[in-house]
Amino acid sequence: MKLNEIIKGIKKTDLSINAKAQQKIDLKTKPQGSLGVLEDIAVKMSMIQNNLNPVIDNKVMTVFAADHGIATEGVSAYPKEVTRQMVYNFLNNGAAINVLCRHNGININIIDMGVDFDFPCNINIINKKIQKGTKDFSNEESMSEEDAILSVQSGIDVFEELNRVKKIDIIGLGDMGIGNTASSSAIISAATGIAPAETTGRGTGINDSTLSKKIKMIETALAKHKPDKTNGIDILKKVGGFEIGGIAGAILAACYHKTAVVIDGIISTAGALIAYLLNNKVADYLFAGHKSVEIGQTAALNLIGIEPLLDLKMRLGEGTGASLAINIIEAACKIMTEMASFEDAGVSQKSEQKK
Amino acid sequence: MKLNEIIKGIKKTDLSINAKAQQKIDLKTKPQGSLGVLEDIAVKMSMIQNNLNPVIDNKVMTVFAADHGIATEGVSAYPKEVTRQMVYNFLNNGAAINVLCRHNGININIIDMGVDFDFPCNINIINKKIQKGTKDFSNEESMSEEDAILSVQSGIDVFEELNRVKKIDIIGLGDMGIGNTASSSAIISAATGIAPAETTGRGTGINDSTLSKKIKMIETALAKHKPDKTNGIDILKKVGGFEIGGIAGAILAACYHKTAVVIDGIISTAGALIAYLLNNKVADYLFAGHKSVEIGQTAALNLIGIEPLLDLKMRLGEGTGASLAINIIEAACKIMTEMASFEDAGVSQKSEQKK
Repeated sequence: MKLNEIIKGIKKTDLSINAKAQQKIDLKTKPQGSLGVLEDIAVKMSMIQNNLNPVIDNKVMTVFAADHGIATEGVSAYPKEVTRQMVYNFLNNGAAINVLCRHNGININIIDMGVDFDFPCNINIINKKIQKGTKDFSNEESMSEEDAILSVQSGIDVFEELNRVKKIDIIGLGDMGIGNTASSSAIISAATGIAPAETTGRGTGINDSTLSKKIKMIETALAKHKPDKTNGIDILKKVGGFEIGGIAGAILAACYHKTAVVIDGIISTAGALIAYLLNNKVADYLFAGHKSVEIGQTAALNLIGIEPLLDLKMRLGEGTGASLAINIIEAACKIMTEMASFEDAGVSQKSEQKK
Repeated sequence: MKLNEIIKGIKKTDLSINAKAQQKIDLKTKPQGSLGVLEDIAVKMSMIQNNLNPVIDNKVMTVFAADHGIATEGVSAYPKEVTRQMVYNFLNNGAAINVLCRHNGININIIDMGVDFDFPCNINIINKKIQKGTKDFSNEESMSEEDAILSVQSGIDVFEELNRVKKIDIIGLGDMGIGNTASSSAIISAATGIAPAETTGRGTGINDSTLSKKIKMIETALAKHKPDKTNGIDILKKVGGFEIGGIAGAILAACYHKTAVVIDGIISTAGALIAYLLNNKVADYLFAGHKSVEIGQTAALNLIGIEPLLDLKMRLGEGTGASLAINIIEAACKIMTEMASFEDAGVSQKSEQKK
């Protein structure tokens, strides 16, 4: 479907099921509230699926990859070639995200949104290449408006194509792209108004001088391009990346199709922020998989209004944090569907009040 | 084996493998340190198993159940019968711990350490009943010294019997026993010297007046019985529970047999504290599955010197937090064994230093 229809068609989840879901959990054989965040997840999943027995069968991870012009300015600890090398690593099942998806039974898909390399046609990659990398946003805008829209549309298409093959119950969003933490921090500063010094981290592990340079580049870019903080497409066009547009699109499509979404680190969260600016109802479908070491992620999560499930001091991206969180979300759904109630089990309820 | 031999036989894990394990992780296709806590877990698992390819095949959960004399004082929100009712719920696969163990492929075992009920002999429970519940520790010591030692010995026997059937690679420790947060807070205050008001929480969800009463009972008991803060058996005998002794024993045996241990909430952590007082080398084998809402748990973890992996605001016990953490620990081991190195994958390493 077309981007505009998707954006217009996203609905808030059904509040009327909220109380019923909480009541169902309260009758399970445990003290009320004692499963903490698992209970919140179970309620949110019930609302997303409009079902008191939320199901997670088909778990999908989409890893969106692209190159970034800003990488040529030396803002990353790794050379640009690593983007394509890591894509091959994904295809050969050797990367962290492959290991973690296999571990949790998640079907992984790699999408080329704009890697600066001609991949052969006979490999298992979804080809949505917009351009061979963005422009250097410290000099000029990252991409044209047409390409910004096309990248989001391509993310929509990826979700809808995969969802047609087999209905997706939960989708994780991962990324690969040398230079993409710089783009993500720029997006988050643009949308939140928080200074780049407060949203920019060490990415793959840069030293102090490279970090100062990275912050200055982002400051320069925002001062020069003046992105409209309420306009997701404008921000994406001026300082974004093709994989970030793809992530935003996949999130919008997932929400349109009432599918739970798990975001990962700062890049995936920047993509969610673009989607949120296009329609803030996406928040109803979003889970933040983990708290990243990258400081900008928290600012973005605060604006969206969601809290991370895990805090394992990770900063790898690829969808790694999301893949671990999917196991927790699945557990919460099974609490809802498989656990006995006090009545089922013949267990006495709370007695304190009787005294 | 006998308790004394087990205590004496526990060895520190091999420090010489630490650097090798970290080096192996550093050569994986990811920025150094970017998997955060997963890397720490992988190193600890390598040290525990003395193997750079740590394996988790047989995952076991042991849920130790017993009744508590203190429950008759009305310090819980639930009647004492709930202990046996929940044991039946475990046996019928209806409780949260059943759902979560099934979800993560963990083999669950229920142990009767001292439930005040005569279970029939033809049910799937491991019978190590010491007594039908402890004495009310606000009046007299919880149990005799013989029974304290026997409860720890029984936990050792449970581990060794299960380990003989099939070698255990990781063991989670869960609990069931109305009144056992009171006993656990008393143990933690006794061992740490921290006042009961700072270690005592709402357990299954008691109100303010019951909480005040619970704190007073613990203060009275500690003032009356004066447990020796360095002596695990003395503390167990004076304010402990049979399931807590069993947990301590299973932990000691697991450490003796170089097996990774995952503790759960405040009860399981109180058991770990007893084990730690008997031999502080157990810390090398312990993972804290999650941070419980029960405030006393943190004091105990600080004394042992370990940090919780998850924080999902849970306070159910049974081993529920541990069962979720086992999935994370397993993921960390697979990172160590299944993920490609830079050399394997032909990925360029960090370039920043070259500039």
